[in-house]
Amino acid sequence: MADIATRVYNHKWKIDPIVRSLIDTDFYKLLMCQSVFRNRPRTNVTFSLINRSHSVRLADLVDEGELREQLDHIRSLGLSRGESTFLRGNTFYGKRQMFRPDFMEWFEGLRLPPYHLEKRDGQYELTFEGAWPEVMLWEIPALSVLMELRSRAVLKTLGRFELQVLYARAMTKLWEKIERLRQIEGLRIADFGTRRRHSFLWQDWCVQAMIEGLGESFIGTSNCLIAMRREVEAIGTNAHELPMVYSALARDDAELARAPYQVLADWHEEHDGNLRIILPDTYGTEGFLQRAPDWLTTWTGIRIDSGDPVQGAETAIRWWQERGEDPRKKLVIFSDGLDVNRIEELSSRFRGRVKVSFGWGTMFTNDFRGLVPGDALAPFSLVCKAVSADGRPTVKLSDNPNKAMGPPDEVERYKRVFGVGHQQAQEVLV
Amino acid sequence: MADIATRVYNHKWKIDPIVRSLIDTDFYKLLMCQSVFRNRPRTNVTFSLINRSHSVRLADLVDEGELREQLDHIRSLGLSRGESTFLRGNTFYGKRQMFRPDFMEWFEGLRLPPYHLEKRDGQYELTFEGAWPEVMLWEIPALSVLMELRSRAVLKTLGRFELQVLYARAMTKLWEKIERLRQIEGLRIADFGTRRRHSFLWQDWCVQAMIEGLGESFIGTSNCLIAMRREVEAIGTNAHELPMVYSALARDDAELARAPYQVLADWHEEHDGNLRIILPDTYGTEGFLQRAPDWLTTWTGIRIDSGDPVQGAETAIRWWQERGEDPRKKLVIFSDGLDVNRIEELSSRFRGRVKVSFGWGTMFTNDFRGLVPGDALAPFSLVCKAVSADGRPTVKLSDNPNKAMGPPDEVERYKRVFGVGHQQAQEVLV
Repeated sequence: MADIATRVYNHKWKIDPIVRSLIDTDFYKLLMCQSVFRNRPRTNVTFSLINRSHSVRLADLVDEGELREQLDHIRSLGLSRGESTFLRGNTFYGKRQMFRPDFMEWFEGLRLPPYHLEKRDGQYELTFEGAWPEVMLWEIPALSVLMELRSRAVLKTLGRFELQVLYARAMTKLWEKIERLRQIEGLRIADFGTRRRHSFLWQDWCVQAMIEGLGESFIGTSNCLIAMRREVEAIGTNAHELPMVYSALARDDAELARAPYQVLADWHEEHDGNLRIILPDTYGTEGFLQRAPDWLTTWTGIRIDSGDPVQGAETAIRWWQERGEDPRKKLVIFSDGLDVNRIEELSSRFRGRVKVSFGWGTMFTNDFRGLVPGDALAPFSLVCKAVSADGRPTVKLSDNPNKAMGPPDEVERYKRVFGVGHQQAQEVLV
Repeated sequence: MADIATRVYNHKWKIDPIVRSLIDTDFYKLLMCQSVFRNRPRTNVTFSLINRSHSVRLADLVDEGELREQLDHIRSLGLSRGESTFLRGNTFYGKRQMFRPDFMEWFEGLRLPPYHLEKRDGQYELTFEGAWPEVMLWEIPALSVLMELRSRAVLKTLGRFELQVLYARAMTKLWEKIERLRQIEGLRIADFGTRRRHSFLWQDWCVQAMIEGLGESFIGTSNCLIAMRREVEAIGTNAHELPMVYSALARDDAELARAPYQVLADWHEEHDGNLRIILPDTYGTEGFLQRAPDWLTTWTGIRIDSGDPVQGAETAIRWWQERGEDPRKKLVIFSDGLDVNRIEELSSRFRGRVKVSFGWGTMFTNDFRGLVPGDALAPFSLVCKAVSADGRPTVKLSDNPNKAMGPPDEVERYKRVFGVGHQQAQEVLV
């Protein structure tokens, strides 16, 4: 029997909102937001959406009116009482009151700032400008909205049973991956797929399938809302955004060279244990580690997010050994371009040498490759990045030149300051 | 929002009934029932459930108490007002009032007669005895109940997501078949899968998938309830049961030799057009056609239900040609052991030579092969047959000795009377 009232209520919605909560975002955005709120609250930043997959012409696929409705809806969202209670009361990484009362009070009153939207060459130019702690929270919802509107656009023409079979195939595909992951001894893996997900409901399904299928090996999700609803750990530490903005604000080369360490010094003050994870690749992993102060070697681990992951992990192990640390007590988190083959390969390569965990993203929450004609649901490479801070451009080098960002002259300056030489290019799939 | 009342109502059910309607049965059972109700209402028959797949130990898998509850529930069913209206008012095979008022009045008052259930050697001995028109209606619900209780028994240990993925895989499997069938020019195919279905809901899903996926090529379902609910044609004509019982009642060899034709003479009187389909294999197709009276050549077509289907259809074509009929105006219905490969093969072989349609059964509604460990959901060969009539054993020879039934001396007598020589044995998979 249908619940008539529910049905009527559903029909009253003007739109079917994609993002329905301010905590439908990556947990580390909230951790970073609190750090920024304390240390750099008045920095003015611009975030910009960049589609690295030019062949996916988003502005042709997605109706501008629909996009605006979704973005406007996000601007209407405020933290609910239950969400606030969760953030204030939950244990994150073994710690109560991770979020300080002054931050929570600010967050409870927050509405996301305006956006600027234009069409150009079949793409959307979507930018956000304003105070860093506010603007930074646009990143994940902006990506989720565009990813899901693209999915909806492609799915529009499918029949009811075609749709059901499409999801049946996607479920089967994921389950087969889970069955393979189950074979990996000592696996520790988390969902990092919010930003590139096929849709919210699909991510939620994937997480629940992992909970049942992997048990203790599934350590949690980066999605704060799903972590709350499914009662699993919220996972995440920090991202490139921090060193990029700190570096852009540097007044000279000397300050620039110190900036990435200043980020971690601020972080060090705020967090301990598993939240102390170094993300070393923003301006080249090798140089970053060579010049790192000794207190960084006491951190819990390193996240490898670009370049050849084997080389990245070997570099980290060597660095710990050189600084007198036992790598077997350290954690390496792999989070770049993962799928099951690579997870298997990295697990077996580093077993016993270092603790390993995986942040599985796009190929976890958006592997619809090969499921519709023309592969129109294949994941694509959409990012939303800080492009300037207080009027100065940001730069990212990473360990893969194809992931580099920023004006060419600034890229050259950063390469010089951080001593980055030739880099091996790797294809950026997702 | 859950409908609280619905949830509470569902919890009040003592069991989850498998068969919930007297018309959740094959349409031809109703056609035959009406014929029997008119011509042989007082014949006393025994139907018996026979599991040809000895390795599937039903009595070990399925709890006797649960089985009794399901069978008792079926005995509580009566034709609902809407079902009666449908049977009285619907157009079947282009004809209104297919079911006569006296038959409908009887059917409306009908409750199924008692059953006898015993366990022996890991199998259930389930028999029904009484007036033919009543007992014959047990066949399909008895099979559905045992098939679905077996499915439930196997599925009991699966987790929620394992279950969802199981059905995702089954859906994908079926959809891939539908995608292949879509390529067959001029295909006409019907669902004949009620008796061997994985479950009622699954059959209902399969039919709906065919409606969307095949459009006009899907000509309907043999399941009367699903035909009513999904507003498609109810499909079916007659079965071996009629010649088997008529033959058992024959008082001597001469009457025996005439019996199969008497069945069709009674049928001829009652039905025309597409309902005039010969099922020639009960006592050997070759001899049956050779000795057939000329009026049978004017019938619409032949159903091939055992033996090599190519040979069966070639025999039919030759027979029509010998009798001066144009095979291109005749219909061959294939209904034995079909899956997509064979449907493709038969379609291409007979295209332009004869009209062809397919009654797709077990591999349509129960292809769960390879989906659980130990292949515990693979379909198996369960039948429910008339084994005696007025105290005399029935016999079936068919065009495949592995499908023969009856006491050995009677089988020999029938072979002699119908001039059946050596037969090619074919494996009975389902």
